[in-house]
Amino acid sequence: MSKNLFYTLQKSFFLDQKLISYAKSDYYPFHMPGHKRANLEFPNPYSIDITEIDGFDNLHHAEGILKEAQMRAAEIYGAKQTFYLINGSTCGILSAISAALPKKGTLLMSRNSHKAAYQAAYLRELETIYLLPTITEFGISGSIPPSYVAQALEDFPQIKGVFITSPTYDGVVSDIQKIADIVHSYNLPLIVDEAHGAHFMFSKKFPVSALSCGADIVIQSLHKTLPCLTQCALLHVNSKRVDIDLIKCFLDIYQTSSPSYILMASMEQCLRLLKEQGPKRMKEFTQLLNQFYQIAKNLKHLKIFEKSDYSQEICFDQDYSKILISVGSTGLTGKELYHTLLHKYHLQMEMLSGHYVTGLTSIMDTELGFQKLFSALQEIDRKNYKSDSSNPEKDLTTKNIYQIPKPNMSISMALEQTSETLSLKASTGHISQEYIYLYPPGIPLIAPGEVLTGNLLRTISQCQEQGLSIVGLSDKEKKRIKVVKI
Amino acid sequence: MSKNLFYTLQKSFFLDQKLISYAKSDYYPFHMPGHKRANLEFPNPYSIDITEIDGFDNLHHAEGILKEAQMRAAEIYGAKQTFYLINGSTCGILSAISAALPKKGTLLMSRNSHKAAYQAAYLRELETIYLLPTITEFGISGSIPPSYVAQALEDFPQIKGVFITSPTYDGVVSDIQKIADIVHSYNLPLIVDEAHGAHFMFSKKFPVSALSCGADIVIQSLHKTLPCLTQCALLHVNSKRVDIDLIKCFLDIYQTSSPSYILMASMEQCLRLLKEQGPKRMKEFTQLLNQFYQIAKNLKHLKIFEKSDYSQEICFDQDYSKILISVGSTGLTGKELYHTLLHKYHLQMEMLSGHYVTGLTSIMDTELGFQKLFSALQEIDRKNYKSDSSNPEKDLTTKNIYQIPKPNMSISMALEQTSETLSLKASTGHISQEYIYLYPPGIPLIAPGEVLTGNLLRTISQCQEQGLSIVGLSDKEKKRIKVVKI
Repeated sequence: MSKNLFYTLQKSFFLDQKLISYAKSDYYPFHMPGHKRANLEFPNPYSIDITEIDGFDNLHHAEGILKEAQMRAAEIYGAKQTFYLINGSTCGILSAISAALPKKGTLLMSRNSHKAAYQAAYLRELETIYLLPTITEFGISGSIPPSYVAQALEDFPQIKGVFITSPTYDGVVSDIQKIADIVHSYNLPLIVDEAHGAHFMFSKKFPVSALSCGADIVIQSLHKTLPCLTQCALLHVNSKRVDIDLIKCFLDIYQTSSPSYILMASMEQCLRLLKEQGPKRMKEFTQLLNQFYQIAKNLKHLKIFEKSDYSQEICFDQDYSKILISVGSTGLTGKELYHTLLHKYHLQMEMLSGHYVTGLTSIMDTELGFQKLFSALQEIDRKNYKSDSSNPEKDLTTKNIYQIPKPNMSISMALEQTSETLSLKASTGHISQEYIYLYPPGIPLIAPGEVLTGNLLRTISQCQEQGLSIVGLSDKEKKRIKVVKI
Repeated sequence: MSKNLFYTLQKSFFLDQKLISYAKSDYYPFHMPGHKRANLEFPNPYSIDITEIDGFDNLHHAEGILKEAQMRAAEIYGAKQTFYLINGSTCGILSAISAALPKKGTLLMSRNSHKAAYQAAYLRELETIYLLPTITEFGISGSIPPSYVAQALEDFPQIKGVFITSPTYDGVVSDIQKIADIVHSYNLPLIVDEAHGAHFMFSKKFPVSALSCGADIVIQSLHKTLPCLTQCALLHVNSKRVDIDLIKCFLDIYQTSSPSYILMASMEQCLRLLKEQGPKRMKEFTQLLNQFYQIAKNLKHLKIFEKSDYSQEICFDQDYSKILISVGSTGLTGKELYHTLLHKYHLQMEMLSGHYVTGLTSIMDTELGFQKLFSALQEIDRKNYKSDSSNPEKDLTTKNIYQIPKPNMSISMALEQTSETLSLKASTGHISQEYIYLYPPGIPLIAPGEVLTGNLLRTISQCQEQGLSIVGLSDKEKKRIKVVKI
């Protein structure tokens, strides 16, 4: 490290200054957070950043203004009890799983879950059984069919709780009503990671929220799709199947004892805006979305994801505020499409994959924003066409590469064993101590405790040859893996 | 819950609006955060609140601007590697203990540690052995003498790591240099919770930072004593005795996957301010402090804590930016002094105890602020005197009530057992599943897994009779306790 790092760097390289400079640029955000950097009224954050002084309550033992704020949130969402989270949905997922299942219990979870679900399983020494989502031709994970849940519960009577991600990062929703009925017939709790669905409750044009479908605990990020600051989320409890005191205990562990009043003020402000203006703004927003999807049908080569192209088993429902744009027959790669939108049109999208890009929209998006996106897509669509467009990457992201793993030991047991690091090639038959994801869709090909089969290693190698993004391996060159030492 | 909570409440009861209204008031903050709500330049937070878009790196896999920002922090503090924490010192303590000790290992820790240290012991199923701090006549916890650490390490060869809180909430510092030498002679890691000492490095008028004394991991809250937003903290690693990759793994678990760029920008801004103006501002600040302590000697009945009144064993060193004001012979209680300062003089202090109040100061305090505090104290001192002032509460907060507990089982084992709830009276001989603190000083009288002895229950009952603040019991009336069911 240079001993003069401070002086060798230009001022514009300081994070705060780069952020201010970016805020002044004309890049349009089709990404999180859902406030879209709009000019919402907010004081200088230092002026309202306090500690738990008289009259301002204590998040961890809320009895005053924070208790009431959380009751207002519960009222808006129709929950029995709601908790403000200032460490994101991450701490909500950790707390929900930790509280809803006994230590060393068995968790049935969708394989395409946020890493926090795996980490909760690690911390609480849970055994994990996975539900593999269907895969759409579009290359994204589809829904978890209720029949999969029913089968797993029948096959594994030791299951103590169920965790489902709905919607996914791509906006795909599962039939939570039916899944809840099945899970409850075993008198087990259903936790739904609805991090991307905090806006569902405010318009019938969006899928029905898991909260209305009978899920016992629902976790939502306010910042992802609503006008709220990053790190803000809610945990809703909606049944007597879970011990609220135990959830409080774990929230007390996984969240700082000095919660930010800026973040909490942003949550209050966000929910009041939705209470007061939600219906009107959602109506305007969904009209813009409808218009966009309508005119996007005129695109000849680019292809926008629509749920109507799929059966209910593959895509029970979809949140169309997430705009998924496939390169289709343009001959472009996802990366090229993404960078063209970014550099030529100054449209910052949320995510790119081998053959599609994702844009996130919210009530804070403007008509002009949608117009810019459509104009850019129209121009790209006109200029790019390749008759023999084939996308080899697309073939790999089919259901064939994901298989229900044969676990050898739990995540926690595997991670507590002595390690050795092997080349991927030499690791056949060994037990992994690492996650390997193909990103997107972000489903682990393997998790700690699972056996590295020859089939799996061939798939990983093929993915790497095709330049797909393999993440999770701690080895920077992605050639070696930590395994349990025999 | 009222179904019309939104409409029955006045607008001024919304958190964001109450914070704005408070910001406009004339209350002067002798409390955290260290920025003292000063008019630091900062843009509208929504304008810079982004997600991990191109060019802005990823805190959990920092390779660009966030890597450099953390390297600058390491350079300033002279650490081998430094991590930005956006979930407070809490997540730093959890991660440090989780990474530095093997699961089910034995942790030697100061009994007056933040709850996060106990929670880490719970999560990682650690056995805990405690170091009881000395107690000052002032009623606050004193230092941990190095000899206590040496004795414990000799007595318990199973110890795998040591955790010390220094400074305490009251600013009392232990001899970390000697403690580090002792701990390292066993080749064990020393973790220091220096949450209240992030400013030490910037002036020789403050105690020497644990980072300069050889501690292996040091956790500091930036918001407590420096001009930084709440929830911001640093974890420094300064030795090869701890596995940095493992620390990263745990930070990845205990921190949201959507870290706030507002918080990170505030850390960068804070550290740059200290780099550029630190020496000058610290000089001005310590001059104000010196003046204050000098003229405070003229107070006749109120008494300000000074380390010179104590031996090095009881108070090795003290951070005098924390102003501890005893009611002395005024005849007032701590509560009366606190409320007089608050309501009559509009001085919001940090904390009150039975017979003293604490005010926190920082480089952001003004000469006028110090003057206001001194004038108020002078007036109170002149008006209040009681010749037979005796403070029965003071007697209780002596070392007699704190004893090294006889543990029956680890915290985690106790918390996983079946519970029953008994009246405190009926709980003699049972194993606690709860913490009971006397606050201040915030040292647990009992932790989960420890036996509720008759002596202890009598002490609790005496404390309650004297109106001291017993916290931790989940029973709202503080009359019942959860114990392990026999």
